Amino acid sequence: MTTVSRGTSAGERMIQLASRLFPLCRSITGDGVRATLREIGERIPLDVHEVASGTPVLDWTVPDEWNIEDAYVATADGTRVVDFRASNLHVVSYSEPVRAELTLAELRPHVHTHAVEPDWIPYRTSYYERTWGFCLTQRQLGALEDTTYEVVVDATLGPGSLTYAECVLPGALEDEVILSTHVCHPSLANDNLSGIVVLTELAAALAAVPRRLTYRLLFVPGTIGSITWLSRNEEVVPRIVAGLVIACVGDPAPISYKRSRRGNAGVDRAASHVVGRRDGGRVLDFVPWGWDERQYNSPGFDLPVGTLTRSAEGEFREYHSSADSLDLIAPAQLEDTLGVALEIVDVLEGDCVYRNLSPKGEPQLGRRGLYRAVGGGDPSTDQLALLWVLNQSDGEHSLLDIAERSALPFHVVRAAADRLEATNLVARIT
Amino acid sequence: MTTVSRGTSAGERMIQLASRLFPLCRSITGDGVRATLREIGERIPLDVHEVASGTPVLDWTVPDEWNIEDAYVATADGTRVVDFRASNLHVVSYSEPVRAELTLAELRPHVHTHAVEPDWIPYRTSYYERTWGFCLTQRQLGALEDTTYEVVVDATLGPGSLTYAECVLPGALEDEVILSTHVCHPSLANDNLSGIVVLTELAAALAAVPRRLTYRLLFVPGTIGSITWLSRNEEVVPRIVAGLVIACVGDPAPISYKRSRRGNAGVDRAASHVVGRRDGGRVLDFVPWGWDERQYNSPGFDLPVGTLTRSAEGEFREYHSSADSLDLIAPAQLEDTLGVALEIVDVLEGDCVYRNLSPKGEPQLGRRGLYRAVGGGDPSTDQLALLWVLNQSDGEHSLLDIAERSALPFHVVRAAADRLEATNLVARIT
Amino acid sequence: MTTVSRGTSAGERMIQLASRLFPLCRSITGDGVRATLREIGERIPLDVHEVASGTPVLDWTVPDEWNIEDAYVATADGTRVVDFRASNLHVVSYSEPVRAELTLAELRPHVHTHAVEPDWIPYRTSYYERTWGFCLTQRQLGALEDTTYEVVVDATLGPGSLTYAECVLPGALEDEVILSTHVCHPSLANDNLSGIVVLTELAAALAAVPRRLTYRLLFVPGTIGSITWLSRNEEVVPRIVAGLVIACVGDPAPISYKRSRRGNAGVDRAASHVVGRRDGGRVLDFVPWGWDERQYNSPGFDLPVGTLTRSAEGEFREYHSSADSLDLIAPAQLEDTLGVALEIVDVLEGDCVYRNLSPKGEPQLGRRGLYRAVGGGDPSTDQLALLWVLNQSDGEHSLLDIAERSALPFHVVRAAADRLEATNLVARIT
Repeated sequence: MTTVSRGTSAGERMIQLASRLFPLCRSITGDGVRATLREIGERIPLDVHEVASGTPVLDWTVPDEWNIEDAYVATADGTRVVDFRASNLHVVSYSEPVRAELTLAELRPHVHTHAVEPDWIPYRTSYYERTWGFCLTQRQLGALEDTTYEVVVDATLGPGSLTYAECVLPGALEDEVILSTHVCHPSLANDNLSGIVVLTELAAALAAVPRRLTYRLLFVPGTIGSITWLSRNEEVVPRIVAGLVIACVGDPAPISYKRSRRGNAGVDRAASHVVGRRDGGRVLDFVPWGWDERQYNSPGFDLPVGTLTRSAEGEFREYHSSADSLDLIAPAQLEDTLGVALEIVDVLEGDCVYRNLSPKGEPQLGRRGLYRAVGGGDPSTDQLALLWVLNQSDGEHSLLDIAERSALPFHVVRAAADRLEATNLVARIT
Repeated sequence: MTTVSRGTSAGERMIQLASRLFPLCRSITGDGVRATLREIGERIPLDVHEVASGTPVLDWTVPDEWNIEDAYVATADGTRVVDFRASNLHVVSYSEPVRAELTLAELRPHVHTHAVEPDWIPYRTSYYERTWGFCLTQRQLGALEDTTYEVVVDATLGPGSLTYAECVLPGALEDEVILSTHVCHPSLANDNLSGIVVLTELAAALAAVPRRLTYRLLFVPGTIGSITWLSRNEEVVPRIVAGLVIACVGDPAPISYKRSRRGNAGVDRAASHVVGRRDGGRVLDFVPWGWDERQYNSPGFDLPVGTLTRSAEGEFREYHSSADSLDLIAPAQLEDTLGVALEIVDVLEGDCVYRNLSPKGEPQLGRRGLYRAVGGGDPSTDQLALLWVLNQSDGEHSLLDIAERSALPFHVVRAAADRLEATNLVARIT
Repeated sequence: MTTVSRGTSAGERMIQLASRLFPLCRSITGDGVRATLREIGERIPLDVHEVASGTPVLDWTVPDEWNIEDAYVATADGTRVVDFRASNLHVVSYSEPVRAELTLAELRPHVHTHAVEPDWIPYRTSYYERTWGFCLTQRQLGALEDTTYEVVVDATLGPGSLTYAECVLPGALEDEVILSTHVCHPSLANDNLSGIVVLTELAAALAAVPRRLTYRLLFVPGTIGSITWLSRNEEVVPRIVAGLVIACVGDPAPISYKRSRRGNAGVDRAASHVVGRRDGGRVLDFVPWGWDERQYNSPGFDLPVGTLTRSAEGEFREYHSSADSLDLIAPAQLEDTLGVALEIVDVLEGDCVYRNLSPKGEPQLGRRGLYRAVGGGDPSTDQLALLWVLNQSDGEHSLLDIAERSALPFHVVRAAADRLEATNLVARIT
């Protein structure tokens, strides 16, 4: 796979898209998701799907659609002491409509604050139990006087549909790589505008190059979205050879890869190789929580889908609060994630098995222009890579096996195989 | 397996039993063992077996029976300078009878002292070579004047029998767990009154609860006792699915588990899980010495029998000396060992394989009352356990596998499986 | 295998032989190699082989033969400013003949100096590209005035033959162990007179003892020599069960073993056991560069051949320079290497599988004189070894397996097996 432009422009494009998407009030259904997918569709080709409320999807049912116009808590004089227009985090996602006069005592059970930080608004949801609620800073709550409030959630919650989108980029093979991110969070930047914009840019990069594998990029609401997709795509599932859930990828933490349930699938080995070579890169074992990898890795599917993240879910202080703002993500971090994802793709695309056609003794590299003339000094990395590929290409070891054993970067091993193939010293096994 | 009372009373009961047994002069045969088993039989149902001297047992022969009434070294005026009545350690176990006047020089080859501590009496035996001897403190030996002594060992050594006892607690299955301890040491507290009293209390606890497996508790003289038992119970051997030798379990060291020869038998995994989670708990590889595990793990039997101990044989300063007194053992330490043993039993009883009945995607836990309603915070350990059991229950992984992979305690995983079984989300595979 | 004399004399014999061989100008062909093999042949029986230039050997061709009489760079007045007679390193090995008057500027492209040390002559070769060159110290080069020089390489480079030698020591079995070293370096002591003299002494030691395995010691020019040998001995290859390349074994670094490509072949396990027990001993993974192990471990042969060295290639400062002089090697270091090699041979010779003939319970060692009479103290290493061999001899574990699991030295385990065999407690499985 040839490289694509990863200059400042990619990072800036991602930040710009994130900024446009930030104010939208996304949830697991509704117009916020639709507006988000429309923006993404400006940059990459997207198939948007609507699935009606009430549709059975695996063990679940597509829920009613939620949309919200406005919400507030106001004093008798009409002053909004809590205002949805200031931050869409102020309303518990999927709050049912309410319009009431309530005392502070009556309001209290519907109020959520952040456990630690006095000035942060927490993010809360109630998708599957009908209720309503407001999220306030501790300071806001503390300032509320013991009086009567006008409480309004101007929302609709009823039959509609769930919205998700796919971008399918066909390759030479039908084998598919799925790349999935969740689009259900409102104004939270790292979780998960970062995932959305990296996936968008990744789709644009992949669309521009020849592909051996087919790539399917999924923009889905968390949990119910991947469940809905799985439910409607059982014929695609057997073709999936690798996958990544990409989320929380804009913060300053170093890159992390969480293995699939299988633990040693091709994607696990490819991603471990790439992430393991990064400064501070972490490779973590599978655990059955996190994001949509939970669904892809359920035992009935057991797909080879890992997770690319920077700070894992809940590992950063700002997680699920108003502090997860655009300030938390940066172009260089988004670009670094994009670069890692593309390197993993390079391994998935480029890994294959060769056979040494001159396996007895080393072939004489010198007369083929593959070796320096005057001997006695140290071998270069390129020369070592040639020797490794020759030594290991017995039909049993792939280039990734060789990169792992030699501790050389995959692209160096890949380049050595190309030089050896060009001089007829190795042949690809198909 | 429901919990049994493990309060202060259990520790105190164990110390009280140890105190009653301490003065008895046990050896590999004789009345000391019989009196010991009589005391134990007051608390739990015991089958006592007598095997005649001369009986061939595997490669060995049941030895003559040894009993001792009195022994001393006295000066001409009748003053006992070494006195069996002061400590039964003063006489080498299995000393043949002697009654003689000896000079100090003649006595000297029959005297043993502790290699390090001047005030400790060492513990010595000579089961299979006929001789006699006295064990003295260095100080006692140093104080002996160069004169003539009356030397008396008033013992009998002749045909009789070897005594051991079993407590069999039948379970729903014929599969057996053997729990074995040695009863051949005289007045030594940690080695091995501690093992005797823990095994006694363990039998009482197991007798009080329903059992899936059958438990066979063995009180045997070391080496020759387990060899005799194995020789007479070859039809039981194939039913043994797990076992523990329990010895030296009252001292302050943290709990240790020594693996069976197989290294990864069910009991090894169960005990490693339990012991590995304890503060300072150590899991050690099998070595072919120690106590009766040597016999159970001989290659002709190769039984899955590990060893539960605190300080391993020879690892505590007081080992095989008069300093291994009742002061070395304590109720809390005995109770801790009992608790570990019962936890291991809980794993052996409770481990089994489930199948997820809703394996595609996660089932919706919320509508089954298994998930909090308002999302956004961190999952609890109980919720994680539900997800782990669902994710791993593909028919290949047992609850212990899941506990190991998730690093959750077995009982938490066990409880999660119960909740999922109650809501028909998993079914036990039989 | 009984021990051989490894006293001061062996180390001194090795140093003396190295001193006699040091001045000879070896290369991959020519009279320097022949003179070297003649000297070695004084000590051990050698079959010397000549293979004509132009002979195809695997992917290579035996090159023309190179011999050199003299070489120098001289000023107009005949003063030699660079003189082959002072050090044969001054000439690039395989320099083609030249006789010319050159300006310093014209000479310059043919001059090599050491990258770091101003007073060291580097070692350079140009076997497969026709050129000529001189190796100078940085100081020599700096002192050259900008004038005209007489440049002479009085060498011949034309059809002849490549020379190598074998010493075959037949054993009871046809299974072969190859022990190989390179003989192509000129006046360099550690690389590789050290390998040559250790291999010579090893041959002498092996010749003096009974052998289960057949040993084939190879003195070959690097790369082309092992390729030539492999090409001409394809019928021997299937009989090779183990092998060692021995090189750079006289310097002060601790002993190192580099695994074969297979990684866990018998020789890898034997050598890891021996080297791993030495102070500072290192066991390194296979890499496809170094010395002739590259050829033996090429995928078409994949022989179980590891490498015994002290400092690996390029790991010592003096590598491939005039500082790799006789001062760098020492009798004690050569002897230590010889001892390690003989210990590895001991394992290869002595490893086998026994069956415990009394596998149920421990046999009673006491009545067979294999156990102390008075019990209660700590077991000795010899007693532990007896118990380990008995416990593990179920027909599945070799003595080396037992040494590895018990962490006892192989020779202790071997001795225990002998004692148990002598008392009919174990029998060798053939």
